[in-house]
Amino acid sequence: MTVTETNLPLIQTPFLQEIVRQIRAQDSLGVYRSWSDELIIKPLILSKEQKRKISVEGDVDPVTQLRITAFYRAIATLVEQQTGLICQVVINLSHEGFGWALVFSGRLLVVSKTLRDAQRFGFESMEKLAAEGEKLTNSAVELAKRYREVAEV
Amino acid sequence: MTVTETNLPLIQTPFLQEIVRQIRAQDSLGVYRSWSDELIIKPLILSKEQKRKISVEGDVDPVTQLRITAFYRAIATLVEQQTGLICQVVINLSHEGFGWALVFSGRLLVVSKTLRDAQRFGFESMEKLAAEGEKLTNSAVELAKRYREVAEV
Repeated sequence: MTVTETNLPLIQTPFLQEIVRQIRAQDSLGVYRSWSDELIIKPLILSKEQKRKISVEGDVDPVTQLRITAFYRAIATLVEQQTGLICQVVINLSHEGFGWALVFSGRLLVVSKTLRDAQRFGFESMEKLAAEGEKLTNSAVELAKRYREVAEV
Repeated sequence: MTVTETNLPLIQTPFLQEIVRQIRAQDSLGVYRSWSDELIIKPLILSKEQKRKISVEGDVDPVTQLRITAFYRAIATLVEQQTGLICQVVINLSHEGFGWALVFSGRLLVVSKTLRDAQRFGFESMEKLAAEGEKLTNSAVELAKRYREVAEV
């Protein structure tokens, strides 16, 4: 089922709910406790204009790194739920905002993305965020089904 | 062929030669130009006693990180030579010396190792270093042959 095929409000769809859960899990000080799910997702939504204003010089700041991790952990969790496999997430960023986002199970990489300008990690709209998350999840689940043996090596 | 089955001097065996090449490649200032291969390998050889003296508090220092990278890049290069596949290396270290060393081709992880106390990365002897490098290379090549399709996804 894709975002457009469900009757749920967008924020209630599985991928966005999982990313909200991941970000709340990082919130050891309880700052987000009174925040709505929409407010928690908001920093991941960046217009082209907003992205352009973020410098790509130097390190990716820790809060952005946590958001990138939350995005890929959400995918990993949905893949685990749909396949029963345990997934690991490795985010590797150089000091210039380049790097890799990897989700793997056993010897199988179910997600393998190069990151570029990670300082500007974000999506134009909540719809695009949900659609990208779903697309990556679905292709990961498909790979895990096709090459299950490699995930179980 | 394993280390013990060749008549070459140990330092001339393929894995050690490749790791020397990787370390020399990082030497942009030419400091190692006059060094012997043995001298270049030497910092990777650590006795238990020497390891115990290295603190595992805090970050893995950059020189040690380069050595870890050289070790896994050497494996990646030998796998490339033996399979014709292109390999990527990702070393991911937390601030506490824990992390992952990954070598992958396409969607196939040919090496997947968790790192612990990476501040103390080293081997008891040149023989053990060569043996470990060969063991990882051989198992990587075997995986690449068995699951070539996944590496070519």
